[in-house]
Amino acid sequence: MQIPTVSEMMDNMKCAIIEVFDTTFGQQPKIVQLEDSEKGQGLSAIVGLGGTISGYLALHIMPEDACMLAGNMLGAAYAQVDSIVCDAIGELVNMLAGSLKKFSCRNGELFKISIPTIVLGSDYSTHAPKDAERILVGVRALSALLTIQLVVNIQR
Amino acid sequence: MQIPTVSEMMDNMKCAIIEVFDTTFGQQPKIVQLEDSEKGQGLSAIVGLGGTISGYLALHIMPEDACMLAGNMLGAAYAQVDSIVCDAIGELVNMLAGSLKKFSCRNGELFKISIPTIVLGSDYSTHAPKDAERILVGVRALSALLTIQLVVNIQR
Repeated sequence: MQIPTVSEMMDNMKCAIIEVFDTTFGQQPKIVQLEDSEKGQGLSAIVGLGGTISGYLALHIMPEDACMLAGNMLGAAYAQVDSIVCDAIGELVNMLAGSLKKFSCRNGELFKISIPTIVLGSDYSTHAPKDAERILVGVRALSALLTIQLVVNIQR
Repeated sequence: MQIPTVSEMMDNMKCAIIEVFDTTFGQQPKIVQLEDSEKGQGLSAIVGLGGTISGYLALHIMPEDACMLAGNMLGAAYAQVDSIVCDAIGELVNMLAGSLKKFSCRNGELFKISIPTIVLGSDYSTHAPKDAERILVGVRALSALLTIQLVVNIQR
């Protein structure tokens, strides 16, 4: 079984982002450079990856952007984050993980995907184990700015 | 392959809690009734479960209790949550997931376990997808109060 490098996982992550956002929102997303000050947070949707590749994929977004994207996905308007918005953003990170898996596991299943956890708050941060590899990608989709974070331990 | 019911998963979760806390802290933990007001939070350690059983296992704890348990695990004193405390609590939830897997997967691997995410903050909440089953267990270990949350979708 061919196991991708971290750099290949980064490329696969970008392919997954482009595929999922293009399909979901009918518009090519922009991969952007992340400034520290821009790391929009307030809602994080996290799915675990377990297997030869163990890790997690997190999508961090501002609540108002989460409402806008969920509204676009569901054809409705949401003024604030409720369980429907949470589920829509959970579905988005789930699709991203599924697409990442498709691009990364052409020769065998390297990981399985958990259901998403949504973290919502005005003051929190997320932390990965110190020995894990981290990939951070900024994405501009419609008018929203998202941070997509992939944290992995690859067993070789 | 025999797939456990949610009620069996609840029993397996309690066995895992007793096994892991007893081994780690040399003292039998107490399974306690959770009052809403008692749901200590401030640090959450979450591992994803992916496979026939998809879900996540979360451990919610107050930062001061996290420091105390990490100190007990590592034979040191921690005044506040740093990366060492985060990693220790991550290891604790990882052991819980491993033990839950041992008790739940006697006849085949029902899920794989991701690496932990740690959420740290003074104002946040965690949310599961609306169609998932939830199990909540209160645990008193040494002087700490923890909430162990298991969220699962069982494919039958």
